[in-house]
Amino acid sequence: MSVNKYTVVELAEQFGLAFKGDGTRVIDGVGTLAGASASQLSFLSNSKYTAQLTATCAGVVVLREENLTDCPTTALVADDPYVAYAKMAALFERRPDAPHGVHPSAVVAAGARIASTASIGPCCVIENGAVIEDGAILGPHCIIGPDCSVGAQARLVARVTLVTRVTVGKRVLIHPGAVIGSDGFGLAFDRDHWIKLPQLGGVRIGDDCEIGANTTIDRGALDDTVLEEDVRLDNQIQIAHNVHIGAHTAMAGCSAVAGSAKIGRYCMIGGNAGVLGHLELADRVTITAKSLVTHSIREPGEYSSGVPLQDNRQWRRNAARFKHLDEYVRRLSALERDSKDE
Amino acid sequence: MSVNKYTVVELAEQFGLAFKGDGTRVIDGVGTLAGASASQLSFLSNSKYTAQLTATCAGVVVLREENLTDCPTTALVADDPYVAYAKMAALFERRPDAPHGVHPSAVVAAGARIASTASIGPCCVIENGAVIEDGAILGPHCIIGPDCSVGAQARLVARVTLVTRVTVGKRVLIHPGAVIGSDGFGLAFDRDHWIKLPQLGGVRIGDDCEIGANTTIDRGALDDTVLEEDVRLDNQIQIAHNVHIGAHTAMAGCSAVAGSAKIGRYCMIGGNAGVLGHLELADRVTITAKSLVTHSIREPGEYSSGVPLQDNRQWRRNAARFKHLDEYVRRLSALERDSKDE
Amino acid sequence: MSVNKYTVVELAEQFGLAFKGDGTRVIDGVGTLAGASASQLSFLSNSKYTAQLTATCAGVVVLREENLTDCPTTALVADDPYVAYAKMAALFERRPDAPHGVHPSAVVAAGARIASTASIGPCCVIENGAVIEDGAILGPHCIIGPDCSVGAQARLVARVTLVTRVTVGKRVLIHPGAVIGSDGFGLAFDRDHWIKLPQLGGVRIGDDCEIGANTTIDRGALDDTVLEEDVRLDNQIQIAHNVHIGAHTAMAGCSAVAGSAKIGRYCMIGGNAGVLGHLELADRVTITAKSLVTHSIREPGEYSSGVPLQDNRQWRRNAARFKHLDEYVRRLSALERDSKDE
Repeated sequence: MSVNKYTVVELAEQFGLAFKGDGTRVIDGVGTLAGASASQLSFLSNSKYTAQLTATCAGVVVLREENLTDCPTTALVADDPYVAYAKMAALFERRPDAPHGVHPSAVVAAGARIASTASIGPCCVIENGAVIEDGAILGPHCIIGPDCSVGAQARLVARVTLVTRVTVGKRVLIHPGAVIGSDGFGLAFDRDHWIKLPQLGGVRIGDDCEIGANTTIDRGALDDTVLEEDVRLDNQIQIAHNVHIGAHTAMAGCSAVAGSAKIGRYCMIGGNAGVLGHLELADRVTITAKSLVTHSIREPGEYSSGVPLQDNRQWRRNAARFKHLDEYVRRLSALERDSKDE
Repeated sequence: MSVNKYTVVELAEQFGLAFKGDGTRVIDGVGTLAGASASQLSFLSNSKYTAQLTATCAGVVVLREENLTDCPTTALVADDPYVAYAKMAALFERRPDAPHGVHPSAVVAAGARIASTASIGPCCVIENGAVIEDGAILGPHCIIGPDCSVGAQARLVARVTLVTRVTVGKRVLIHPGAVIGSDGFGLAFDRDHWIKLPQLGGVRIGDDCEIGANTTIDRGALDDTVLEEDVRLDNQIQIAHNVHIGAHTAMAGCSAVAGSAKIGRYCMIGGNAGVLGHLELADRVTITAKSLVTHSIREPGEYSSGVPLQDNRQWRRNAARFKHLDEYVRRLSALERDSKDE
Repeated sequence: MSVNKYTVVELAEQFGLAFKGDGTRVIDGVGTLAGASASQLSFLSNSKYTAQLTATCAGVVVLREENLTDCPTTALVADDPYVAYAKMAALFERRPDAPHGVHPSAVVAAGARIASTASIGPCCVIENGAVIEDGAILGPHCIIGPDCSVGAQARLVARVTLVTRVTVGKRVLIHPGAVIGSDGFGLAFDRDHWIKLPQLGGVRIGDDCEIGANTTIDRGALDDTVLEEDVRLDNQIQIAHNVHIGAHTAMAGCSAVAGSAKIGRYCMIGGNAGVLGHLELADRVTITAKSLVTHSIREPGEYSSGVPLQDNRQWRRNAARFKHLDEYVRRLSALERDSKDE
């Protein structure tokens, strides 16, 4: 790992941005407005941090033109400073080297196919019928089960399990502890006990998806579970069998989708939100944190459930009343009738 | 892995079903009504899919007698087509071979006992005092801690961790990432800091249980945490120390049970539902998704909490009112008194 | 592993407690009041179990002075019997030996530094720049990524993943499946697709913390994610990037904290509770199970959200009414106006 360095002029040219100030400054990293040093890049995206801008020691700040007057240092001007910052910051990310080839401690079945430019880390297990494409990186302890494939330039950080019949697209990033392709939870009740339905489908993960730590995605019962391209899943998300998630949808940590639900494109699912089985959500639906989706949603927009947090004593009084809400409304209606009769 | 093939007559005889149509058809797999080919079995369990039945290309469909008239192909007749399908579909599941013996990359302590017909996969670690019974299959990367046992014909798919004092029954199926027998969360507060209570119990998993991916089951503080037989746990479930779950209970993904709670037999716990500690649930209790059980339940039946999903603007208005619900009810009661006084 | 034995007199002296009864009794374990044998220690902390005390067969019971009269056996007297029990019980915990040195199946990079008194278990992977301090124990299958350090006497039970730039303090205990230092969920939306923000910070875990099975803690985007000392996290907790958790705070299973939230000291977060991003919680705040914190909390105290569990039929009626709560309150207000006008 080596440190990357760029002058402000080089950054401006590479990302098509104007700059104001000293273009010769050498930048070797990024930081917050409050913490960045004279060799670091920072950004101002939300105007409520303008006070931090005026006091920053950053070498260069990417910001909107309207904030130039408050900037005490060199500036790069962008229409969307957060996006511009995201692109530039990637230059300064140091990733450990991933040497081509298979680590001697890895266990690779004779029937697996691994591209010569792929990197297979320590203690990985690659089973029969598995395919690892060009430039894919598998960190330590990944398990690639039978009939699974990992696309070109994909990166499985460490300890990722692809159980069976999982297809991972190009440039997909999967974090440790994720389990993809485990059995869907399919049971039939036979008089007095459960019978398991074999889960004969697979999982298809589109290009450019990201899958968080300890997230689980079950394989389909007959057809596949599908994530279209650029789906972004945070940590500890549960995706049940035969779910279909549209492109560019993002889900926050601990959210969950039950079996056969279909989520549209460009949806945003909040933390610990849930979607019941067999429902459909239109494109561009936002679900706020901890909400439970109990019916299909046909229109884009923001949807919520839950009640507000309160001091426990106040909350107890209100919650106790909720148990009789229907009765209260009936009493209200009766009063209204009486009032009209008078 | 080889493809299994059966004629319709063979299926009818093996499962004690009548058939109507061409009994010589050869079936080599299963599929949905919409997707199955002429060599595949499908099923109709829910009459709302009758339209798909009339258009199916499946080689044979298992269905109720009443749906025979709408079936364009050979049919197998069953009282419960879903259960019959589940049993037949298992014939077509192809599982990778699991050779008897211990993979050379596995690490087995001298004091472990492994049946000669068991299969221990790559990179497994088997510690002292562990016992692996006849025909048990451990996929890659399983860890079997001290004083743990895995019953006959049990299957740990991959990367299962049994920490300590865990007894796994016969034919149990455990999915990747499950952690069983970790310390219960037992703490005592000593003036200004926490003291840990040693967790000296174990975990007992009954025969025919299934445990989902990344599910966690803690061992007991003094006595054991117990799952009776045929308990079915989906992914990412949390079972705290000293919980007792009755036979044939099924829990959906992301649900959780706090310490020392006792769940009855034949219960159904919905996704992301929770049960507080030390409560008792009777047999045949159903808890709907995302509900929180805050008191013991003595009667079978279905129980719920939560409020419905709405458009965010409408929801905000209602949720704001909830904070004053007790006050509104008092105002309602005052109006009623006034009304009577008149 | 050998059995530890102590006389009652030895326990009394070691923990500064008075005893009443036979001080020569030899104690070799602990048990519940109902289950302990004549060579075991039990405790009575909650007076509602006094009936169990009168019938106990335990060799010795630790209890408050006021319960002495009901004790049929030898007693140790403590102001806080639960804390005293916790300390004594630790004497009887048998832990597997952890031999100094590196197991031959472990993979250690040339640039890692491992103390000679540390224990590195089977199949561990220790990457460049990692540091393992004196007496630290890594069970099987731990992965210590680049620039991570594990403090003296810390114990990673098994299968713990430290991804990158993670500092673990002294005596920290981490349970299997925990993933610490994975990428924070940082995304910028660039017209029609997501761009990932590199996560350049780390994670700092203070001394004496405990982290549960399958819990995930992301590393910071620029600054670090921080747990101060003696923070206690149960299983399946999700801590997002740049969260800061104050000393001695305890969080129950399946709770979650979104990005950049700051939790005070001595807080208690209930099971499956959530805290939204960028909020601040004062010291000594308690959040009850399954509550969602949607605004900062400045005052110590107990806070809640949610509605009570009910029989599903009753609940349906009340929940349906919630959707129109604002309207009902308007109707109530109108009635009140009418009533005043009369």
